[in-house]
Amino acid sequence: MTEAPATETGDPTHWVLSLSCPDRPGIVHAVAGLLAEHGGNITESQQFGDPLSGLFFMRVQVESAASREELDTALTALASEFGMTWDLDVAGRRMRTLVMVSTAAHCLHDLLFRQQSEGLPVDIVAVVSNHTDLAGVAGFYGIPFHHVPVTKATKPDAEARLLALVEELDVELVVLARYMQILSDDLCRALAGRVINIHHSFLPSFKGARPYAQAHDRGVKLIGATAHYVTGDLDEGPIIEQDVERVDHSRHVEALMALGQDVERRALARAVRWHAEHRVLLDGHRTIVFR
Amino acid sequence: MTEAPATETGDPTHWVLSLSCPDRPGIVHAVAGLLAEHGGNITESQQFGDPLSGLFFMRVQVESAASREELDTALTALASEFGMTWDLDVAGRRMRTLVMVSTAAHCLHDLLFRQQSEGLPVDIVAVVSNHTDLAGVAGFYGIPFHHVPVTKATKPDAEARLLALVEELDVELVVLARYMQILSDDLCRALAGRVINIHHSFLPSFKGARPYAQAHDRGVKLIGATAHYVTGDLDEGPIIEQDVERVDHSRHVEALMALGQDVERRALARAVRWHAEHRVLLDGHRTIVFR
Amino acid sequence: MTEAPATETGDPTHWVLSLSCPDRPGIVHAVAGLLAEHGGNITESQQFGDPLSGLFFMRVQVESAASREELDTALTALASEFGMTWDLDVAGRRMRTLVMVSTAAHCLHDLLFRQQSEGLPVDIVAVVSNHTDLAGVAGFYGIPFHHVPVTKATKPDAEARLLALVEELDVELVVLARYMQILSDDLCRALAGRVINIHHSFLPSFKGARPYAQAHDRGVKLIGATAHYVTGDLDEGPIIEQDVERVDHSRHVEALMALGQDVERRALARAVRWHAEHRVLLDGHRTIVFR
Amino acid sequence: MTEAPATETGDPTHWVLSLSCPDRPGIVHAVAGLLAEHGGNITESQQFGDPLSGLFFMRVQVESAASREELDTALTALASEFGMTWDLDVAGRRMRTLVMVSTAAHCLHDLLFRQQSEGLPVDIVAVVSNHTDLAGVAGFYGIPFHHVPVTKATKPDAEARLLALVEELDVELVVLARYMQILSDDLCRALAGRVINIHHSFLPSFKGARPYAQAHDRGVKLIGATAHYVTGDLDEGPIIEQDVERVDHSRHVEALMALGQDVERRALARAVRWHAEHRVLLDGHRTIVFR
Repeated sequence: MTEAPATETGDPTHWVLSLSCPDRPGIVHAVAGLLAEHGGNITESQQFGDPLSGLFFMRVQVESAASREELDTALTALASEFGMTWDLDVAGRRMRTLVMVSTAAHCLHDLLFRQQSEGLPVDIVAVVSNHTDLAGVAGFYGIPFHHVPVTKATKPDAEARLLALVEELDVELVVLARYMQILSDDLCRALAGRVINIHHSFLPSFKGARPYAQAHDRGVKLIGATAHYVTGDLDEGPIIEQDVERVDHSRHVEALMALGQDVERRALARAVRWHAEHRVLLDGHRTIVFR
Repeated sequence: MTEAPATETGDPTHWVLSLSCPDRPGIVHAVAGLLAEHGGNITESQQFGDPLSGLFFMRVQVESAASREELDTALTALASEFGMTWDLDVAGRRMRTLVMVSTAAHCLHDLLFRQQSEGLPVDIVAVVSNHTDLAGVAGFYGIPFHHVPVTKATKPDAEARLLALVEELDVELVVLARYMQILSDDLCRALAGRVINIHHSFLPSFKGARPYAQAHDRGVKLIGATAHYVTGDLDEGPIIEQDVERVDHSRHVEALMALGQDVERRALARAVRWHAEHRVLLDGHRTIVFR
Repeated sequence: MTEAPATETGDPTHWVLSLSCPDRPGIVHAVAGLLAEHGGNITESQQFGDPLSGLFFMRVQVESAASREELDTALTALASEFGMTWDLDVAGRRMRTLVMVSTAAHCLHDLLFRQQSEGLPVDIVAVVSNHTDLAGVAGFYGIPFHHVPVTKATKPDAEARLLALVEELDVELVVLARYMQILSDDLCRALAGRVINIHHSFLPSFKGARPYAQAHDRGVKLIGATAHYVTGDLDEGPIIEQDVERVDHSRHVEALMALGQDVERRALARAVRWHAEHRVLLDGHRTIVFR
Repeated sequence: MTEAPATETGDPTHWVLSLSCPDRPGIVHAVAGLLAEHGGNITESQQFGDPLSGLFFMRVQVESAASREELDTALTALASEFGMTWDLDVAGRRMRTLVMVSTAAHCLHDLLFRQQSEGLPVDIVAVVSNHTDLAGVAGFYGIPFHHVPVTKATKPDAEARLLALVEELDVELVVLARYMQILSDDLCRALAGRVINIHHSFLPSFKGARPYAQAHDRGVKLIGATAHYVTGDLDEGPIIEQDVERVDHSRHVEALMALGQDVERRALARAVRWHAEHRVLLDGHRTIVFR
């Protein structure tokens, strides 16, 4: 559950409630009833019952003058009755986000720009990198840059430092924006559901390194990118968004990479937005995306 | 409101309820409560409140063993309380559809094929044309073909005959699948919200005839098509779906037309499917599409 | 090389010349010179030199009143000088095509319809199937239907019968339009470069059967299809065209399959068109597509 | 014709030759012959004859050790024979570019970033704006920023200052990256074929201001952007590139604008790249784009 923002008034607040629980009759009625009792006016709502997993998913935007305490108390009781996982947040609140990069600038640039100009609802509180190349980009936007080098020997220390930063800065979301290091299983577990990676290929994909070289060699006519949650199972985490771009025979590997960067930043920006707006819910190893 | 299908058992039925009404607190709660009282289990649901029009829209799929009479009675009462327009249908029921064509076969072909093989939930009960060219296509699929020629003089008679067919065959939806006649205002009013047209251009578009020739002359890089409800305001009815296809300088007008046919049949098929599944609701001259 | 059509006059004919050879200076000049000597006026031309394979590719449309014999003689001499593979055809000539199917109708339907109405430049001379389900579709379009059942025991006989049909009907192109049998290596070799398959997945893809079920299980956000030449290396033949369609969590496996059929028929129709127009040239296991 | 770059060696140079002339037999042969005489090896080439305008268009990439003087002399002679307009440039040379902006940062940001990181072959030598908002963005990339305010009274002076900058800085291309002023007819003529604008709508489009508001009001399902050359005929200059993005009913006007910015920067970046690579040729009021 997201922590309450520091200041909240008695004026009607626009809330986002997202939840999932085992499917059974009466869930929508119970949730809508709870909200109605607290003077809530539902402005947007989406539900989905997955017949395979037997789970029910719901995202509601609601205006209500009730306090967070009142809503939390009521939702906690309801959740216990329905076996519900839930999250309540102020709509439009910027999610505290840490971005990890190596040397490729396109995704970092894009996120910083969208945060500033397009209302991407994140508050990028730190950029962490195992290289120093992108310190200037972070600096231009006034974001603290942390250089955390990673070698085989220092990896545990580096991950400990990352976790400390996450703790210290109240980070809610970590974005791997072309960060070329694999996170340890322990770190994946510690940050489960809070790390989004952009994979530089359509998934399923060519296995192994240099996907654009493989794509060129295979003569594909579309190249793609995949934004997904990070789990211990490399590149197999739940997919949030995918996109593609058309290519032809005249594109050499470098041109494919440049085109691919466009696809990557588009897919990643959408995934981050949807996550920050609580539009992405986990259904086992798949995602429900209430766009 | 859709008429009840002839046979219905006491077994749980999968229903689709779509509705709209002035937005105010408590709608979802009231609807969900009504459904819960009738043993309903909501399997899919979408809502949207339009801040501009002040209207609220909702589409719910629900399983319930209640009879149509019970549900109709309860919904009628609720609708009166909330000023609600509503429709209750059995999920997956095939909507009785009449297709109007002139000489171009691609959209007719596509609809007939999708009805048969892809589960497009329509039951095409008649093909009406002002020409005879497509009688064979209808015949192949075993659909009655009605030749209703139209001249300036016979247009009122022709439209009367169409209306008689709509009546007689219990037609719920009329699809203008490249039908090259303009319906009279009276006919548009009589069938309001029940006629879908495919416009052979992106809208907004070049005004006047021969849009592909104009698109070629202007050197556009994308051509499009628009499926919309028919109103008396020609080509200005509420848009249901639009799609485009990339073109380049080497395409002459005929090639644009061939490519355009692909876009037309795709956009039309989607619009027909969404309408037949009660996914399209009218919000003034715009549509809400719960895909 | 394509056989000359039976009738050819002395009037200027619109030709398509496609060729490839080791790259070196002077190729375009030599080809253009040959065509100029025969009164040729080039109306469209594309070239590509692949730095990786060291091969040069060219497709020219040219108007010339020269006879095929004259052009053939001149091109044969040139080809010997440059180590050239070449093909000369009358532009717009319909390529004699045999379509193989099992039970799924969508691709067959689409090809037959486009052949008739959209000027897809193929002449479908036979439909061959290991089932009888689609005999009616072929019949509606007046195309001879051959039922050639395949069991493990009869496979060699079935393939011999196919080859006999190819021979007897002067078939230039075989299209596997959702034909659910794997061709033997011998057959692949015998028809190398003349068989196009539609693969019901993006490639690279999930390995094994039921790709739509796998795509659903993995929660992909795009589904795709791939049209490729058939080689002995299953699903690894040179890719001609790929396309995708966006999907979301609410699509169950059957809905993915229906959407997938749309992508399949689009990708296959484009691949067949480009092949029939001599726009696809082989560059090792990749294709050059001069669209 | 582009001026020769300052330094050129006798080593083989990779050239781009683009040309157009009235269509007639022998053009390709003559061009290829000229190049062969100068030891040229054609690595990529595209041609197109427009049957409507009667013009022939060609773009060739060729490696040759000949000097620019030799090639210029030979091409001048050939051009005179064929009535040819032509341009010879070193492949990959960065085109000297001036970007004009008002207050919206997305397109400027994108061009600056792509120039630096993706090899967009332009050398942005100045940013000119009628506002000061974007001085910091230009400064971050080390690009001189010129504030040239425009009022009705000062417009002639402002345009004179722009022309002086174009002259002084050897500017080859001017990009209107959401510059919210209309250029005078005189300026359009002075810079004909050298100014690219990004129009924040699909063309043909809603007439007048605030296209996203109009798009929202009309309930369109796709929004688009168009990159085109600027002529005196406002928004009617030759189209270079168009792109679209899917939207739905839940997007309010601001969300459409944010999505639209993505489409704008994509379409503009492609148009600038193709222009800088001499891939765009004018065919009356249409463009030939050899991608």
